[in-house]
Amino acid sequence: MELSFVEWLRARVPAPAGVLLGIGDDAAVIAPVAGPIVVTSDLLIDGVHFLSAEHAPERIGHKALAVNLSDLAAMGASPRGAVLSVALPRAGAGGVPCDQLARRLVEGLLPLAERTGCPLVGGDTNVGSGPLVASITAWGEAPPQGVARRDAASVGDAVLVTGALGGSLLGKHLDFTPRLDEARLLVERYGVRAMMDITDGLAIDAQRMARASGVGIAIDVAAVPVDPAAHRRAAPTGRPALEHALGDGEDFELLFTLPIDAATRLLTDAPLACGVTRIGQVVSESGLWRVAGPSLHQSLVPLEPRGYEHA
Amino acid sequence: MELSFVEWLRARVPAPAGVLLGIGDDAAVIAPVAGPIVVTSDLLIDGVHFLSAEHAPERIGHKALAVNLSDLAAMGASPRGAVLSVALPRAGAGGVPCDQLARRLVEGLLPLAERTGCPLVGGDTNVGSGPLVASITAWGEAPPQGVARRDAASVGDAVLVTGALGGSLLGKHLDFTPRLDEARLLVERYGVRAMMDITDGLAIDAQRMARASGVGIAIDVAAVPVDPAAHRRAAPTGRPALEHALGDGEDFELLFTLPIDAATRLLTDAPLACGVTRIGQVVSESGLWRVAGPSLHQSLVPLEPRGYEHA
Repeated sequence: MELSFVEWLRARVPAPAGVLLGIGDDAAVIAPVAGPIVVTSDLLIDGVHFLSAEHAPERIGHKALAVNLSDLAAMGASPRGAVLSVALPRAGAGGVPCDQLARRLVEGLLPLAERTGCPLVGGDTNVGSGPLVASITAWGEAPPQGVARRDAASVGDAVLVTGALGGSLLGKHLDFTPRLDEARLLVERYGVRAMMDITDGLAIDAQRMARASGVGIAIDVAAVPVDPAAHRRAAPTGRPALEHALGDGEDFELLFTLPIDAATRLLTDAPLACGVTRIGQVVSESGLWRVAGPSLHQSLVPLEPRGYEHA
Repeated sequence: MELSFVEWLRARVPAPAGVLLGIGDDAAVIAPVAGPIVVTSDLLIDGVHFLSAEHAPERIGHKALAVNLSDLAAMGASPRGAVLSVALPRAGAGGVPCDQLARRLVEGLLPLAERTGCPLVGGDTNVGSGPLVASITAWGEAPPQGVARRDAASVGDAVLVTGALGGSLLGKHLDFTPRLDEARLLVERYGVRAMMDITDGLAIDAQRMARASGVGIAIDVAAVPVDPAAHRRAAPTGRPALEHALGDGEDFELLFTLPIDAATRLLTDAPLACGVTRIGQVVSESGLWRVAGPSLHQSLVPLEPRGYEHA
């Protein structure tokens, strides 16, 4: 790391409890974590995951941490720390000079880091000629019940999502709050079977969950919760709002399955402010399906996943 | 991660013992680590830390992991795992198509990962328009004696380095082996006081150690082990080989201090194949000094650090 940035960071980010040695040495040292450690890493590139010409560095910093915390949430894990490595364009980005970019990224992620108990303990800053790149690795503690995997969906399970989907490009993809508390509650109180976060679109991610679990998922598309932003997107694109809900991606909502009785209990309790919707069922027929009639197994029609497929 | 790469990676990198859930879910899950966890992150950019036009992706992958392991070595830690996140240029790099870059980076780092017990457990691949960026976060287990910090140099300590310095640009900066075994031995058997790895050049890094420790470091420049590569560099640059040894950086050797009696014991035992050289002493006068005469404290001349200072 560049020296003056390290000094600023050491002063700005005092090492909290659990951080035995913070920013400034060759590596950070953190207190032992009880049980298995959950680790994730996500890298964001200007022009792909954000637009520095439109988005302030603080929002980009928030997103860089939030996408990682969303992955920890998807496992039911509790964050314990993160490191940030950046490639800074020599000429700056979005009118922000190079030497202010890293500080403003950090300022943007600190509120979320503090709120979620995820201290920034180190990282690396480098200057190059390319676009702004922010890479975060975050780790956390597995829940006592064991992590929620995406390959554990079981035939007969109900399929549910948190929140509403589609249109995240209008702002949610930058400003969302990762569903950490919601995920922990789902794991602890309702015995989540399979879980993942929706990054590439409900359809493509549901297909991934089905494939990983060796099952099929049938979605009642009429039940999919469509975000108002998906309707706003639909006007200029001319595509149905539902299509945006199924395929836009970067919703960072939770897609999960529960045994039917637990799903019923959850829908009755309604413990989550973000809302939970039952959108389908796990079936034995491999693949992704749309429920096209009143009788489930006689009315499965293939559902083509349309999501952002990483090139 | 892009799907076919994930599938390739899952087959290529079977989850070893200690990895409870490897590549393919939202996050990896690793077995509990005994004691404090040491974490480091380094990001490499094409054109800054390597040249894709000259260096094969395998060498770049090796370096990306090795620089992180060098940081763990500098703490005396034992690696336990790593994640790799990359920004891949859509047009490829160095004549290698985009869709082969990530695999070849991984092929390049796997031998080192296997040799050092540092499984690759996950990461993120993204395609953009900028240069190739490889970001690795690695973690490890602190030594039972506690980590070796850079701020623990004590007045009267001997200052030593492993190996030889300078000219790393001729190849060592890509192909070096991180001094993990050497560092552990120094911590376990000789009670290392302060330690760091040499990344920005001996002079600038020694100055950092001195500043962090609130002391001074006096270097007997005649004793500095000069790598043959520094001599080869000196011919075209017209600068003395010693200057290359003091300032080139990316040596990834260990700079450390020991109480005098431990230093004497180490130099007598000579347990390290890479060699160890005593190059100076920790003094009470703050700053970086050159020993310019036979009597230490009457002959300290300021030594100007010339190293690669991150912009």
